[in-house]
Amino acid sequence: MQEFSNQQLLEMEARYRAIFINSLGGFKSVLLVGTRSQAGQENLAIFSSFFHIGANPALCGLIVRPDVSPRHTLQNIVETGFYTLNHLHEGIYQQAHQTSARYALDESEFDKTGLTPTYKTDLPAPFVAESRVQLGCELVQKIDLEINGTIMLIGKIIYVQVPDESIAEDGFMDLEKAGSLTCSGLDSYHKTERIARLAYAKPDKSPTII
Amino acid sequence: MQEFSNQQLLEMEARYRAIFINSLGGFKSVLLVGTRSQAGQENLAIFSSFFHIGANPALCGLIVRPDVSPRHTLQNIVETGFYTLNHLHEGIYQQAHQTSARYALDESEFDKTGLTPTYKTDLPAPFVAESRVQLGCELVQKIDLEINGTIMLIGKIIYVQVPDESIAEDGFMDLEKAGSLTCSGLDSYHKTERIARLAYAKPDKSPTII
Repeated sequence: MQEFSNQQLLEMEARYRAIFINSLGGFKSVLLVGTRSQAGQENLAIFSSFFHIGANPALCGLIVRPDVSPRHTLQNIVETGFYTLNHLHEGIYQQAHQTSARYALDESEFDKTGLTPTYKTDLPAPFVAESRVQLGCELVQKIDLEINGTIMLIGKIIYVQVPDESIAEDGFMDLEKAGSLTCSGLDSYHKTERIARLAYAKPDKSPTII
Repeated sequence: MQEFSNQQLLEMEARYRAIFINSLGGFKSVLLVGTRSQAGQENLAIFSSFFHIGANPALCGLIVRPDVSPRHTLQNIVETGFYTLNHLHEGIYQQAHQTSARYALDESEFDKTGLTPTYKTDLPAPFVAESRVQLGCELVQKIDLEINGTIMLIGKIIYVQVPDESIAEDGFMDLEKAGSLTCSGLDSYHKTERIARLAYAKPDKSPTII
């Protein structure tokens, strides 16, 4: 085993540390965030900082760095109050990754990568037509994390699309049936293979595969 | 495709919605959080709400529900200021899941599940000896999310253990070499298979596998 002290972490070269630290927490959600400015300019950006906050109401979080490419995403979400979350699958992961290139403000990552914007209900933000799992979100809170200058957005999920027959009887959505991917670090994409679902754990019961 | 409006999401039965909404964001980090109370009582709890906040300093977040089993975790972290994050692999995922059972406050999930507490450096919180990837964290900020009563903990990573030869030349830690798992929903565990790492994206370059 290899160990690193706080001091060793602090002394790492900046790019090396960014890649290393980003890998450490394990596999991550990876999503395309679709937005549109008030002037009508569409934007698409890949994020791996999604996290679940609660189911009732359905709330989720995203961490945004104000100083990098997704800043257009942040501007658009704050301006309009809405955004979409779109899952990756193996057919679009390269295009999804390409959205992280620093395109100019008047260029749309949809045009540049060949992904297709699509609109639904009254939501004023584009979904990715090629994505099988699509979520529509309304911004409900923005929290500035002064500790490192990042911003946390809390969104309420107000629209969901999932593939037919991907929902189990108890509400579980089978991400593997949808072909959804996971990522690690800043640039590694993975498919998955289920080991098992386990029954709700109780103190007097052994773990049980369901 | 199957669609759900905001109204349909609101009308779902509570348990069904919890399972459904928890599945929607995609695959998640899954970690065992090790803590110890000031009185010396050890605690271990499984979390799937880890997220990366920044690499310099190395900061990560966790969402904690104050009303469920991990409340001991929350108390201990606030009391002592320290906790550990330990990856799951296929050999321990059932024991890891079992830590979510509602054991009494004076029972240790280590004892109940057969996982082994171990201590390193000066960190006053137990690591899981069976875990290959282990992170030591110091609490740096606690934010109450009033919107649903959950609590966000921001930790600084101050110690890292990873398996030998799992770190690439650029700092990337290969989670598959460590056998780390991912989870979806509340109870589904998955192994992964890398599709590719992609080069840093640039506007004038096509996506490139590295």
